[in-house]
Amino acid sequence: MPHTLPLVHAGALGSDLAIEQDHGAVIRRSILPGGVRVLTEQIPGMRSATLGAWIGVGSRDEAPEHAGSTHFLEHLLFKGTQRRTALDIAEEFDRVGGESNALTGKEYTCYYARVIDTDLPMAIDVVLDMVTSARLDQADFDMERGVILEELAMNEDDPGDVIHERFTEAVLGGHVLGRPIGGTPEIIEAVTRDAVWAHYTQHYSPAGLIVTAAGGVDHDAVCAWVHDALVAGGWDLAGDAVPVGRRDRFAPVEATLTPEVRIRRSELEQAHVLIGTRGFSATDDRRSVLAVYNAILGGGMSSRLFQEIREKRGLTYSVYSFGAPSTETGVFGIYGACTPAKVDEVERLMAYELERMAEGVTESELERAKGQIAGGMVLRLEDSYSRMSRLGKAELVYGDLWSIAEMLGDVRAVTADQVRTLAADLAGRDRVSVRVGPA
Amino acid sequence: MPHTLPLVHAGALGSDLAIEQDHGAVIRRSILPGGVRVLTEQIPGMRSATLGAWIGVGSRDEAPEHAGSTHFLEHLLFKGTQRRTALDIAEEFDRVGGESNALTGKEYTCYYARVIDTDLPMAIDVVLDMVTSARLDQADFDMERGVILEELAMNEDDPGDVIHERFTEAVLGGHVLGRPIGGTPEIIEAVTRDAVWAHYTQHYSPAGLIVTAAGGVDHDAVCAWVHDALVAGGWDLAGDAVPVGRRDRFAPVEATLTPEVRIRRSELEQAHVLIGTRGFSATDDRRSVLAVYNAILGGGMSSRLFQEIREKRGLTYSVYSFGAPSTETGVFGIYGACTPAKVDEVERLMAYELERMAEGVTESELERAKGQIAGGMVLRLEDSYSRMSRLGKAELVYGDLWSIAEMLGDVRAVTADQVRTLAADLAGRDRVSVRVGPA
Repeated sequence: MPHTLPLVHAGALGSDLAIEQDHGAVIRRSILPGGVRVLTEQIPGMRSATLGAWIGVGSRDEAPEHAGSTHFLEHLLFKGTQRRTALDIAEEFDRVGGESNALTGKEYTCYYARVIDTDLPMAIDVVLDMVTSARLDQADFDMERGVILEELAMNEDDPGDVIHERFTEAVLGGHVLGRPIGGTPEIIEAVTRDAVWAHYTQHYSPAGLIVTAAGGVDHDAVCAWVHDALVAGGWDLAGDAVPVGRRDRFAPVEATLTPEVRIRRSELEQAHVLIGTRGFSATDDRRSVLAVYNAILGGGMSSRLFQEIREKRGLTYSVYSFGAPSTETGVFGIYGACTPAKVDEVERLMAYELERMAEGVTESELERAKGQIAGGMVLRLEDSYSRMSRLGKAELVYGDLWSIAEMLGDVRAVTADQVRTLAADLAGRDRVSVRVGPA
Repeated sequence: MPHTLPLVHAGALGSDLAIEQDHGAVIRRSILPGGVRVLTEQIPGMRSATLGAWIGVGSRDEAPEHAGSTHFLEHLLFKGTQRRTALDIAEEFDRVGGESNALTGKEYTCYYARVIDTDLPMAIDVVLDMVTSARLDQADFDMERGVILEELAMNEDDPGDVIHERFTEAVLGGHVLGRPIGGTPEIIEAVTRDAVWAHYTQHYSPAGLIVTAAGGVDHDAVCAWVHDALVAGGWDLAGDAVPVGRRDRFAPVEATLTPEVRIRRSELEQAHVLIGTRGFSATDDRRSVLAVYNAILGGGMSSRLFQEIREKRGLTYSVYSFGAPSTETGVFGIYGACTPAKVDEVERLMAYELERMAEGVTESELERAKGQIAGGMVLRLEDSYSRMSRLGKAELVYGDLWSIAEMLGDVRAVTADQVRTLAADLAGRDRVSVRVGPA
């Protein structure tokens, strides 16, 4: 498969690279002193810029007794630095109408901001101040614990969140990737500031940092601003440190599935059901085959699940399939919600469609799915957040950055036979069924 | 106040109009035979196009015994036309990776699609086929009833949805604008196909239709495609019918507030609280003053509510204020969710901040709020959906379309004194308190 822009693997250091995309967009990548990676995509005519600061650490990197501390740390970075209070940070973005937030995943943490392009120097200065110079004051720590507990309670009250979390746990068993990102209320109540501080100092370093920016950006200017902000934050950029490599495949996943999980919520009007199996890893060669398969099974209004379960039978408002890949494994699932009396019927229909995919797909389904993926890809390009995010994930998760043309080509090459083979594989795997709702 | 582009009021027909926006975007408006209005905004360099078909009819236009039928009708338009099945409609958009959906409000219904610009003729043809030639087959009607009931159940299971709906009811009392958009399960179970068909034939007509499009669009081509699609749909475009005028102020709102509403959900981890009052109408002269006021009180991370309730006290994950305007009235509220033991304290703090606004705001808060609104406005311009939507609401709700420069100027002119006066007004109004959660 064609990889236009090889990114860094486990310590291998390339020189600066540039790639021209369709419609005049240019992607560039540089490694600054200290091993800091900077990737930008300059998009002609775009007035916004989205910035991301990525650290390749997520909930999977936590000791079980500190589960949730990566997410806790992410919150604490907004609470103030050596130079700025929490209010200062909030005001910097609010006064220019910018959006800033962060996300903690299982394998990485990302702090991001979307601003008008002329405000990008400010965004870089503030976000990297947070990354380099967080204070983690004890008083802030204690206060933020309450906010985290409210966030966990909010997720626990959302049956859609609950079912997806329990599903991943059930499929991946005791594997670290099966653990919820936010931890549990018990652990959050007990975790100490020192444990989170240790997590911070261990993982946040020049060689572990990736800065990505997309939109109305100039690569050389971004590199200079990043450099200045890191120096101002007291980070040592001397020497030719080697960037921390992308996480590679770990020991094989030996987790045991839990075939059936039932969470009772007697006050709910709807029953939620999620069935599925072990899926594919992020770097699996069948990435595009899976995308086509998923589009046909449950990726849109014309998909089999939507047509059979919602359109023909009126059983659900929401029904879809999805894949969620990680470094060494992944999950694949089908979700729906319906009136409790119909949940057996809905689950049976989901399983039937999952199995029927192994009988093959029609040429017209194949063409429709390819068009859907290609069109969606082009439409997403108008969003500077998507493009910033693509750069970070290429570096951290995929290890390669494909041009849009290459991605489209790979999708176009998928055959009905490949889809059928993948479908038979998925249909034959051990399956999990999770339900949340009235008994 | 400056209005660059006067739109149609209660039957007054202007000639075709054009307005040049910042950065080369051009807005044009035409009235086709039959009174069909077409508004476009061509945005240089944008590859997507978003199309909207608007009808000025919403839940407020329903007889109480048919409440929810506008929303029901919106669903039914996707179930097939004289020329297309439901699957055909879904496939048309899926095969090009487009997004299509619709929304039913209290005062309008909008069917929209976002596609690559070269797919716009298809989008116009399909959306207007749905608008002109819906079948509303009895079998589809019965099937879709189940989907609607699932949607209502889903909303009922979301405490955030429930509290906002009950709040509006409590503030607007028996007024039609206080009624939920989707109706109740009892009415949906009982409503007949004939009642919905009557609703359709009464409101869907050339003079009631507004088509808006933004992005990579050419105005003259859009007008031609719209004309052809309506003729193909059998609509009579002969004659010089006058467009249905924008809804004007109705009889004064005399609804009585319900000061306290308590919904018990004993399984929830969080208690939700929403306090507020009657607000301002969409065309109130204080629109920009309210925007500044809201930004300072609860519109961002640096707002008073976020700082006092989340940052300083760690009581909530989510807390914000909002205004929701309609033709002749509106609501203004403050929402938060917290652990049940703290709900009294959170509500007290919300009320305190609402009242403290009447003591005035600082110059620095004023400047920050103006910057926030201006920056957010510019960032939203990159989204062709926002711009499509702005055109439809200008025509249906506001009666005027301001250029971005005019909107920014109006915001910049807001004084601290105006904000204080509005704050005192709101703080002095009768207040409602709604809670959802464990007793």
